[in-house]
Amino acid sequence: MIEEPEKIISHMQHAIYLAKKAWGQTHTNPMVGAVIVEGGKVVSEGYHQRSGGKHAEIIALESYKGTPKADTTLFITLEPCSTAGRTGACTNAIITSGIKHVVIGTLDPNPNHSGSGVTLLKSAGISVKVGVLEEVCREMNVIFNHWIVHQKPLCALKIAMTLDGCMAASTGHSKWITGELARNDVMNWRKLFPAIAVSQNTVSADNPQLTSRLNDEVFCSRRFVFNRALRDLENYKNYHLFTDDFKLETIVVHGTEASRDKVEALEAMGIQAWEISESEGKLDMSEFLKLCAKKEIPGVFIEPGAKLATHMISNGLVDYMYIYQSPKFLMDQKGHSLGVERFSELMDESVRLINLKRIYFGEDTLITGNLQNF
Amino acid sequence: MIEEPEKIISHMQHAIYLAKKAWGQTHTNPMVGAVIVEGGKVVSEGYHQRSGGKHAEIIALESYKGTPKADTTLFITLEPCSTAGRTGACTNAIITSGIKHVVIGTLDPNPNHSGSGVTLLKSAGISVKVGVLEEVCREMNVIFNHWIVHQKPLCALKIAMTLDGCMAASTGHSKWITGELARNDVMNWRKLFPAIAVSQNTVSADNPQLTSRLNDEVFCSRRFVFNRALRDLENYKNYHLFTDDFKLETIVVHGTEASRDKVEALEAMGIQAWEISESEGKLDMSEFLKLCAKKEIPGVFIEPGAKLATHMISNGLVDYMYIYQSPKFLMDQKGHSLGVERFSELMDESVRLINLKRIYFGEDTLITGNLQNF
Repeated sequence: MIEEPEKIISHMQHAIYLAKKAWGQTHTNPMVGAVIVEGGKVVSEGYHQRSGGKHAEIIALESYKGTPKADTTLFITLEPCSTAGRTGACTNAIITSGIKHVVIGTLDPNPNHSGSGVTLLKSAGISVKVGVLEEVCREMNVIFNHWIVHQKPLCALKIAMTLDGCMAASTGHSKWITGELARNDVMNWRKLFPAIAVSQNTVSADNPQLTSRLNDEVFCSRRFVFNRALRDLENYKNYHLFTDDFKLETIVVHGTEASRDKVEALEAMGIQAWEISESEGKLDMSEFLKLCAKKEIPGVFIEPGAKLATHMISNGLVDYMYIYQSPKFLMDQKGHSLGVERFSELMDESVRLINLKRIYFGEDTLITGNLQNF
Repeated sequence: MIEEPEKIISHMQHAIYLAKKAWGQTHTNPMVGAVIVEGGKVVSEGYHQRSGGKHAEIIALESYKGTPKADTTLFITLEPCSTAGRTGACTNAIITSGIKHVVIGTLDPNPNHSGSGVTLLKSAGISVKVGVLEEVCREMNVIFNHWIVHQKPLCALKIAMTLDGCMAASTGHSKWITGELARNDVMNWRKLFPAIAVSQNTVSADNPQLTSRLNDEVFCSRRFVFNRALRDLENYKNYHLFTDDFKLETIVVHGTEASRDKVEALEAMGIQAWEISESEGKLDMSEFLKLCAKKEIPGVFIEPGAKLATHMISNGLVDYMYIYQSPKFLMDQKGHSLGVERFSELMDESVRLINLKRIYFGEDTLITGNLQNF
């Protein structure tokens, strides 16, 4: 058994590093990393590469060539599964391996299974330590953790705003609110999420790529464009989203009341489309999220304007927020900020962020947290 | 000479603790603490208690009864003065004392004197170390540092706001944006500043006391109320500011166009008043600040509504901000936020906070910084 806390942490850090090699590539499964340590050294390791692929601990066990010694320890970022899925229960494989010590980052987030793997291992006479770098191990699977419990996508909003809450000046000008470091960080989340979404307003104004450009790699998740009435189709030939190498990843989400002509025009362009209900002149975003669930999309990273953000938060559809805040005051009476078409009488009507985390990018701050709805 | 960094820091921390015993009570002078250490022990100490009183290092030197040994060291939070003021130059007293080692928290902020004290001490063969807990030593005298350079009061705004920049709902409701811990922290700044100011709107709506209530002590700085046209005088008999034990500390600031009847009514109530110019239907706040300078008030802590805050920031009159931010979204289209009557076309027109500091109160954050004006 490894006793020194700093060594336990160091090996778990390595397992986390391995897990994150598959950053955003394991949906609808979690990222998981595993290492086997013997005589103070890592003698085997593995990580889950994609849904349907082998689990991290199985890869580590299979590439482990020795016979477990008294101190041989398996580190896993997530509690091993206790029910045989596509790949067989990992707890059985661990028990069979003869390894007598297991260190687990965080428990299975599924309340039906949480702790079962630990119980099975302990029943087999294995010493189990749970909760090492627990918050990190849990947080990296923020999408999976939500999906496995709710069977609905984690709906996350990304917003950049000034200290006084402005997302753009009254003219729409918003380049830039935050500095380059903060803007680059968005690339990480675009890669983490299986789907990115923006409104047609954003496409028309900024012609974004919505790809994740990290180091020399360009990655593209599924891209949704909310375009209820199919406006601005005549310019689609000029937009990255419909013309670049990843154009097949782009799906236009339009309303049932969009004209047939336009729907046909979109089809003629070979662009994928989803049709969803409308209510009060707006797309029914809850139907959009249900459709994502049906298509097994476990998370959507929305980069909304003030109007869409207000609508979604007000309707209790948002689970998680990424707020990039710059220490500036725009002080524009007509600046775009949350609250479009929404009125509150009391401070108590506000929505709260919980499980706050803060990351600093120079003078800018990324504030993340779950939205505690009304 | 004391070599161990942790001991140097520990003694400077004690000097800072001493300095802060006079928190807010030394204007227009800085807070300063001093300790004399010999054989690893504090053998004498002192702090500056009030303007006109003895300087910290003089008190420490006077109560030092021994003869300096080879290791005897004087710690001072601020560079000793090199010019004889009301109390004689401290550098001379140090040199005469025979102490051969001096550790200084931060240099004199006055560019005309900065470093002179150090030079004089060094010329006398004293070893001098500068810059221990420098930021803390400098920050605690944020008011003095500004005053001594500009001979104008440090104009600070205190604002509580939600993440989306709301200071109140459209109805004016603002109780409470932040939690109790953050609200209590304001008491510290009310005690630090020699003057507090609010608009008549705030008095009419909230009937605040504007005192600093810390532990069992109630402290009251000078209190300013901005009431251009002398509205609401009929209710003055109901407001704390004009009736409590500290009513003589309250000064109403009104405009030159206030009616003579009202000015006389105010006089009849025995309330102090300042009359300042008006321009475009507003009090000329720069004249107010000049008048503060003339009266040797080195700092004003304004607790403004959105309108006053916007006006002052837009006019480049604000030096420092205390932003208490809660992780909430009010999302009120007509919520009170900065930007009243101000329009911006470009994000570049925003005003930036620099020298940022953050202090956490539960989930709330106090963000302080200097305002980098346009």
